[in-house]
Amino acid sequence: MSHTSPVEAASSRRQKTRERLLDAAYEVFAEIGVDAAPVELITERAGFTRGAFYSNFESKNELFVALAERENAQRLAQLQVGLDTVTPTTGGNLSSMSTATRLEAVSELVAQFLKLQGDDRTWCLIEAEFRIQALRNPEFGSYLMQHRSAMEEQLAAVVSAALANFGQRFIVDPIVAVRLLISAYQSTTERSVLLGSTTPTASDPDLHKVIASIVTLFTEPIPD
Amino acid sequence: MSHTSPVEAASSRRQKTRERLLDAAYEVFAEIGVDAAPVELITERAGFTRGAFYSNFESKNELFVALAERENAQRLAQLQVGLDTVTPTTGGNLSSMSTATRLEAVSELVAQFLKLQGDDRTWCLIEAEFRIQALRNPEFGSYLMQHRSAMEEQLAAVVSAALANFGQRFIVDPIVAVRLLISAYQSTTERSVLLGSTTPTASDPDLHKVIASIVTLFTEPIPD
Repeated sequence: MSHTSPVEAASSRRQKTRERLLDAAYEVFAEIGVDAAPVELITERAGFTRGAFYSNFESKNELFVALAERENAQRLAQLQVGLDTVTPTTGGNLSSMSTATRLEAVSELVAQFLKLQGDDRTWCLIEAEFRIQALRNPEFGSYLMQHRSAMEEQLAAVVSAALANFGQRFIVDPIVAVRLLISAYQSTTERSVLLGSTTPTASDPDLHKVIASIVTLFTEPIPD
Repeated sequence: MSHTSPVEAASSRRQKTRERLLDAAYEVFAEIGVDAAPVELITERAGFTRGAFYSNFESKNELFVALAERENAQRLAQLQVGLDTVTPTTGGNLSSMSTATRLEAVSELVAQFLKLQGDDRTWCLIEAEFRIQALRNPEFGSYLMQHRSAMEEQLAAVVSAALANFGQRFIVDPIVAVRLLISAYQSTTERSVLLGSTTPTASDPDLHKVIASIVTLFTEPIPD
């Protein structure tokens, strides 16, 4: 039962080719942009011929959408991993904590989540390409909005649950608070990449301060 | 004294050609991106030949930098206009206002300022192109960071002065507060463009709510 059938082997080879083309596209799109990138450069970077490309994707646009789906699905999954690993730890001995310490713990949770977004220069470039394509192409735009809503809802649920653990809640719509956290994170990331900072964004003290301010100022104790 | 010398006429014609090339580049860069845009398409859109282009700009990159400088200078100047027109009105009969009303007035000021950034689909695309080029090219990156610092300082000075008029101050570094306001504004703008909203962002009730929350929650009365 352990041997692989020829059909399975072909399918696995095909999957690997696809992944390598997506990896190459990730780099090439970041370097020169989706619209300027020729298919040839992507296939060459992946070490394949044009034929391999077109037996996997109908067009550069199809490859681009597949890349967005792969990267976004990965980030949603990483958020879920964050949920599973972080929540139990921070939900600990809350009764002995001061409010400041509790909010610090929630800020730490938020920073950890956002960190999982992948915060390097290449990701900033890819994300900017996603935005541009979304603005130019309404179909991709509505896909990206759906993805963002899913991210926001997942993060809002996690942060609200963490706050509730500590007897706190947002004083604004949790989605609004989470959007603010995400946009603050993204602009801080971009700033630090542009400044050539070698500190990973997630450890940036300024970012922690901003996140902690939002979490502290936008929350209140849940009334009895 | 009222006639125009041939040299002046040539210089004014040259200036007009430059402006038309920049206007065309603004559209073309938004439509297909800086890297994918051929010089020919820009000159054609402006109604000129390649010759006219190269007698004004050495390269597409020089045109791009000139465009960024023109657009950014324009936005800084508009911020200054906002300062001059808005401040006297909101600085009025403050003693009779409740704190909530004062903060509402400051939020209104912030919304008016941000509105002057130019909040349409084309500007979102151009700004995304600026970010991408800044991430790819360190020289342009440091120019863009300087421009952003100038915007942040100007906005921070104006908002701090307006708050002081009302006996309030930021409880965080004003630059940090202003960065948060700008990033919230930008992501709300992008969202509303992507959702195909026909409401101008500056009148978006969600944006007003977010700005008002930041202004309210991040400020405190100045102690006597």
